[in-house]
Amino acid sequence: MNIALLPGDGIGPEVIAQAAKVVKAVGAKFGHTIHFEEAPVGATAIDLVGDPYPESTHEVCLRADAVLFGAIGDPKYDNNPKAKVRPEQGLLRMRQKLGLFANVRPTFTFPSLIHKSPLKLERVEGVDFVFFRELTGGIYFGEPRGRNEQGTKAFDTNVYTKEEITRLARMGFEAAQRRRKLLTCVDKANVLATSRLWRETVQELAPEYPDVKVEYEFVDAVAMRLIQWPKAYDVLITENLFGDILTDEASVISGSMGLMPSASVGTDNKLFEPIHGSYPQAAGKDIANPLATVLSAAMMFDYAFGLKAEAQAITDVVNKSLAAGIVTEDIAEGGKAYKTSEVGDWLA
Amino acid sequence: MNIALLPGDGIGPEVIAQAAKVVKAVGAKFGHTIHFEEAPVGATAIDLVGDPYPESTHEVCLRADAVLFGAIGDPKYDNNPKAKVRPEQGLLRMRQKLGLFANVRPTFTFPSLIHKSPLKLERVEGVDFVFFRELTGGIYFGEPRGRNEQGTKAFDTNVYTKEEITRLARMGFEAAQRRRKLLTCVDKANVLATSRLWRETVQELAPEYPDVKVEYEFVDAVAMRLIQWPKAYDVLITENLFGDILTDEASVISGSMGLMPSASVGTDNKLFEPIHGSYPQAAGKDIANPLATVLSAAMMFDYAFGLKAEAQAITDVVNKSLAAGIVTEDIAEGGKAYKTSEVGDWLA
Ligand SMILES: CC(C)[C@H](C(=O)O)[C@@H](O)C(=O)O
Ligand SMILES: CC(C)[C@H](C(=O)O)[C@@H](O)C(=O)O
Repeated sequence: MNIALLPGDGIGPEVIAQAAKVVKAVGAKFGHTIHFEEAPVGATAIDLVGDPYPESTHEVCLRADAVLFGAIGDPKYDNNPKAKVRPEQGLLRMRQKLGLFANVRPTFTFPSLIHKSPLKLERVEGVDFVFFRELTGGIYFGEPRGRNEQGTKAFDTNVYTKEEITRLARMGFEAAQRRRKLLTCVDKANVLATSRLWRETVQELAPEYPDVKVEYEFVDAVAMRLIQWPKAYDVLITENLFGDILTDEASVISGSMGLMPSASVGTDNKLFEPIHGSYPQAAGKDIANPLATVLSAAMMFDYAFGLKAEAQAITDVVNKSLAAGIVTEDIAEGGKAYKTSEVGDWLA
Repeated sequence: MNIALLPGDGIGPEVIAQAAKVVKAVGAKFGHTIHFEEAPVGATAIDLVGDPYPESTHEVCLRADAVLFGAIGDPKYDNNPKAKVRPEQGLLRMRQKLGLFANVRPTFTFPSLIHKSPLKLERVEGVDFVFFRELTGGIYFGEPRGRNEQGTKAFDTNVYTKEEITRLARMGFEAAQRRRKLLTCVDKANVLATSRLWRETVQELAPEYPDVKVEYEFVDAVAMRLIQWPKAYDVLITENLFGDILTDEASVISGSMGLMPSASVGTDNKLFEPIHGSYPQAAGKDIANPLATVLSAAMMFDYAFGLKAEAQAITDVVNKSLAAGIVTEDIAEGGKAYKTSEVGDWLA
């Protein structure tokens, strides 16, 4: 197995290093030869070669069977709206060039961490849903975008084709068939032309999945109900920008944000990453929680290689580490706080 | 005082009727002559004259010193993406024609209702922030919008000018000066050209308000922090679409959604409305909670007429009704549930 490692910025390198240890250990146990190839991305790549997603990194990803990604983002770019090159551009170019059109983000709970949820126990206990966020279209990429000549007016274009909506929606329908058979299409069809195309396209597909119940809900209503009653959801499909906002909102409800993995998949390539960011304040301190990245590696074995036992072995050892209290300071709660690298060693 | 009453759809007429009673009572007590003029809007207006915001209704609003608005929306339009006339179009046209560029949405808690919050007590106790959502620009109105000829591709345009951002931002800065002096600019400047203009414009204005601390935060991060630690916020400013999603998310955290008022203000006109929707399931049953509309009337006395004592009298009587348990079934909790009209009578 050829796995590209893209550590990125901030705590990225530290958490990727632990995931790599675990992947290696799984390889040894199950008899897979694992080959890692590492490449720079994000602010790190800008510093090295002036490009947040260099062509050489792209080639590493193309060569690989799967990509394990850390995080990108550096505060030195955040408050400089005029910066010409930004780390995020690398992320977006990577998604587009690898054709990663679906971002798959499960939200579930860990019983030992559920008390950390900002929500009351009865609201969050047993929550189990998954977002399919469209990742290579919409207002993130639509043209025209920019400024008028005087710089006094700015514009962005949201654009979707039926094909883009269809391939994402089909993934959602199929996931719903394997799960609790409820699909929620999240849009703003009462205002946006793009959303009306989403709703229309999903309505046309629905008869092909007669066992799936389809609900249509406005994005603002979902933003409310995700907090009020998150158990109501099973599979949610939505466009790029709504998905950005709602998946982040969803990420905090389980109390296990530091543990939530994600996959970004397309026809030819697959990338796995923790949903947390680059957390620059913690970078280099060996304190970051590696579990989300480790669980992203579990998703990789399952989604990229169809190796369920390997994926399960990782999930199991993560659960054991939680039960044994071999955890980083963010979830240690009075118990001993282990270093990032110590947790990685223990898991491996 | 000339007050336009626009009851709208669903429970709108019932809650507006209670607010009107209270406004009349305040007028009598403080010696103001109140003149109401009622006009149709939303699905009700479509049914009557085929237009969700008829010219005659617009004239009533123009003539008025302030508008009290109920709610619009009817489920018969929701799942029909091809409907030619939709209630929401009336709302959007009304906002634009009245120049209501700022939607002001406070979130605060009522001690007697805080236990209804989906959030844990320590997270929500003392929450007190206010959103200034831009309401007449952005992707809600930007052109071009629509479909290609074959109908297989749809597009919307997000567009903002420096002027639009400036007038909204100044309202936010001024509110922050009267409050805890923290302004959060919510954008997606790492992706959108419009957001970079927002951030740049706010950065240019900031030196004029040296007593206000300004923070810049991405919309996805705010979607998280609003649940994790809502007390962190004081005044938030944002564009139309982000505001739609985030103010709805914010509305559920206090546990008092049925009580939250809002104002939509421009240079010449001011409109006040509950943040809850038309709640069609409850329409006509005399069970809807009128308090958000009544508190919107309090906001009207304050914001539209500068009459603080009148506003306070309304807030006081609402607090008394809560303490006395003269409330509708949604917040009665085992106690006697009063009818919408009974609550209105009691308050008046
Ligand atoms: C960093 C940013 C461009 C990115 C996005 O908006 O997609 C991030 O928020 C995410 O969700 O992966
Ligand atoms: C009904 C709809 C068009 C409207 C909006 O999106 O502005 C509503 O959600 C609101 O927030 O007032």
